[in-house]
Formats: sequence, structure tokens, C-alpha cells
Amino acid sequence: MPLPGCTFPSSGADRAQLAMVLEVLASPKPGNVDRCHDYAETRLEHFVVSALAARPALEAAEARAAGLGSLIERAVGATACHAGGNTHFGAFLLLVPLLYGGTPEGAIQAVRATTVEDAVAFYRAFALTRVRVADTDELDVNDPGAVDVLRARGMTLLDVMAHSAPRDMVAREWTNGFALCRRAGDALLADAEPRTAIRRVFLSLLSTETDTFIVKKHGTALADETRARAAAVIRGEETLASFDAWCIAQGVNPGSLADITIGAIHLALGRGWAWDS
Amino acid sequence: MPLPGCTFPSSGADRAQLAMVLEVLASPKPGNVDRCHDYAETRLEHFVVSALAARPALEAAEARAAGLGSLIERAVGATACHAGGNTHFGAFLLLVPLLYGGTPEGAIQAVRATTVEDAVAFYRAFALTRVRVADTDELDVNDPGAVDVLRARGMTLLDVMAHSAPRDMVAREWTNGFALCRRAGDALLADAEPRTAIRRVFLSLLSTETDTFIVKKHGTALADETRARAAAVIRGEETLASFDAWCIAQGVNPGSLADITIGAIHLALGRGWAWDS
Repeated sequence: MPLPGCTFPSSGADRAQLAMVLEVLASPKPGNVDRCHDYAETRLEHFVVSALAARPALEAAEARAAGLGSLIERAVGATACHAGGNTHFGAFLLLVPLLYGGTPEGAIQAVRATTVEDAVAFYRAFALTRVRVADTDELDVNDPGAVDVLRARGMTLLDVMAHSAPRDMVAREWTNGFALCRRAGDALLADAEPRTAIRRVFLSLLSTETDTFIVKKHGTALADETRARAAAVIRGEETLASFDAWCIAQGVNPGSLADITIGAIHLALGRGWAWDS
Repeated sequence: MPLPGCTFPSSGADRAQLAMVLEVLASPKPGNVDRCHDYAETRLEHFVVSALAARPALEAAEARAAGLGSLIERAVGATACHAGGNTHFGAFLLLVPLLYGGTPEGAIQAVRATTVEDAVAFYRAFALTRVRVADTDELDVNDPGAVDVLRARGMTLLDVMAHSAPRDMVAREWTNGFALCRRAGDALLADAEPRTAIRRVFLSLLSTETDTFIVKKHGTALADETRARAAAVIRGEETLASFDAWCIAQGVNPGSLADITIGAIHLALGRGWAWDS
């Protein structure tokens, strides 16, 4: 039971940090870093330290201290303090507008108000990390000339996200009113056992949504098989342990659905979700 | 490799939070909560959330915003935001003076300057939690009348710690210049493999020091056996896994040495320890 002096989480930044750590500590999460599994380069502590290091950037987002593009750049830069590579890039694409807007409705307004300079800052954020992307067209984030294309076309950050939305489910959230985050947040709030709800909601997402990070890395066939196997686990036809082992053997890590889950936890906490009850 | 924008950890509060999470994420730690082991009431996420929630209190300690007793009370109160019971009480007894003082020398000065009001605030901090204590004399922290005794005798918080020092190794650090924290911090800095150094330093402490938390809970015989078994593991005569299993079966959790380890990590980070190299 909370005791006197207990005020955490009270701010949006508090809830964002809490969402980041609760997501990564939830176990088992098939294929992803969790308590029982590290990747060689990226370990559990990298995700937790990333959540600590992001604090000033998350506070800046809540305070609307800059535009969304610069705020994302700041968050990505701040969490590059560990040797674990990309930990929360996709999560920041969701958390920064949600913090800036205060509510999903506010976030929708905020992404609509983004500018070309936001898009340029976002491309700078990409340069800070090595996030896997599939874009091979003239807006390739790895092409320094892409910024000139952005400016010439007058593309805002929302336009960039709309461009990526068919192939990137995190970008898609910017274009659909954060629909999947909201739906998964509702599922967390509806779950009767909060302590273990995150892993159930994650598995449920995995069984119904195609993780676009898996598609980029391995193609559609393996992404479809992942979804089908997750559904089989829910139906009781495959064990969670064997599904997890299969994911790891295949190199399948559903990173975009982990990002969506962080957005969902953040939204649920904002509606008073009692994660520890 | 750190990238532009990477400034974490830069403050004492940053290093304190990082110390708290690195300690609890180090595995395996025989008998204690780690990645591979929870207790029924206290789980890994409680420790990580406690580190997040402590942020304002740690910043206040670094800014010397109040006396040591009030600062400890504030930290304990702030981390009572989860249902996991006591997570970092002992760690705050070390981190608060270390943050306030800025260096071990500064911390020694700070504890010498404590007052009766610091002692009274510290007793209030105890009331916020249910920390195991062995004191059964007139300074029993569970006895509301103890505060009158403190005032009548003019006991400062350092006096209280000196009173507890023979039976409590965390209190003892106040009286010996944080000697064990410093020694273990040196060991972290000297270790050739930082990524796994914490678990080695913890095991080494366990093999040479009698954890006073174990003594309070189980008596001297079991504390001595714990120390002897840790030494046997280091000599290669017992496996870490069997020692861990024995600790868990006996209910032996070396909580005070975990607190000392947090103080040690904090000090090592202040001297530039490259935890992730």
C-alpha cells in the first residue's frame, strides 16, 4: 500500500520512465530483451539505463521546450550514453508527442502542427543511431541529401511519418491517432491481473499485428509466421517457451511492438493504471 | 561508444540512480533479488521503480536542501510508491550523506555535523517502512518513546548510527569513514571486466564480511556459514548456483551487503568507472 510521501508517478515524464522500465522488465516477452534474455550487444541494463538517461529529454517534451523533431533528437542523443545501441528510438517517437500533447488528443494536434524543421531534426536523430530502416527511396534516412529533398518538398515530420506509415507501425501511430497504443492501453486497464498484464497484452498484439521491424529485418513470411505462432500460444497449441526459443533461433525480435507497448503503458498510467496491485 | 548528446551520468543523483539499478540488475547475486530471482513480496521491478521514484530526494540531497535526517526521510517516503516493501532504506543511509558531501571526505564532515533533529527525522523515516532491526533497548526504533530518549540525551544522527554500528554494517559506515564502500569501490575500479565486476565484488564482500542483516534475521551461525560458503565458491569448491539455491532455501538474503555495494558503485562512478566497457 502506498505510504505518505509517495508521489510517483506524478508527472508525464515519471509515467514515461515507468512505462519504459515496466515494459523491459516484463517477462517472458518472446524474442525480445527481458529478464531472461539479452542480446549480445544489447542487454537488459541498457534499456533501464536508457530510461534513466532520457529523464531530461522527457521533461523537456512535457514542458514543450522545443519542437517535436528537436525533442526526439534530444531523447535519442541522451540515451546514447551506453554501449547497447538503439534501445528506445521507436518508443520516443510515441512518448515525445504523447508527453507534449498531454493526452492522445493533444498528441494528435501536436503531430499535425509539426514543421519541415521538425523533419530535419528527426533526420539528425537518425544520424545519432543505427536504426534499421527499409526506405531505399529518395527519403532514405541514411542519405545526407534526403534533407534537401525534405526542404524542397516542404515535408513536415508528420508527412515523413505518413510516408513511412505503410512499412512502419510506429510511424503509422502518428497517422491514425495513436490507435494501437490506445487499444493496448485499454487492454492493460481491462486486465484483471496488473502484475502480469504487460506480457499478456504484448503477446496479444503479437498475435494480431504484423511487427514491421520483423518485416524490415526478415521479410513478410517470417513476420506472418511470428503472428501465427503467437496466436497458437494464446490458443494453447504451442508453449510460450518454445515460441520464445523459436524467435531467438530465428533472430526474430518484435521491437516495434515493444515500442507500441511502452506507449500503451504510458497511456494506461495516465488513466491511473495500478500496475503494482 | 558514447555519441554526441550523451551526458549521463553527469550529476551525483544520476550516479546514485545508476548505482541502484546496476546493483539490482547484476546477476547472479546469491540470495538477493536479481534478474533470476524475486521474493514473493519484493520483485525486481520494485527496486528499479524505487530508483526512479527516489530522483527528487536524491537531487535534494545533492543540493543540500535539508538536513541528512530529513533527506533520508524524504527518500524513504518517496520510494514507498510500490507494494514491494523496503527496497533501498539502507542504500539511502549511504547515498544521502555521499551525495550531500560530494566526496567521502565531504560525507564524513556531513555526518559529523548531524543534529538531534536529524536523529528525530531518521526515526520518522523508520516509521514509514518496516525495516528489520534488532535493537530492543530504549532506542528501539519501533518505540514512539524513543524520540524522547534521543532528545533527553542530545543524541545526533551520528550518535544513533554509532549506537547501532556494532550490530549494523550500514550504520558502521557512518563511523568508519565509509570504509567498506570505499574498499569495494576500489575493487570495482580495479576489475578488468566492468560488465561483470559487480557480481564479483558482491561475492567477495560476502566471503569476507558478516552481513548484519542476516545476523538480525537468522543469528550469527547462519551468517558465518554464508560467509564460509561464499569463500568456498571463490575457491571453486562450491558452485555459485548451489550457493544461491542454499541461500534461497534458508531465507538468507544479504541485504546490507547489497546496500554497501550500491554505495561502492556510486563512489566508483564518481571516479569515472566505465561500467559498460
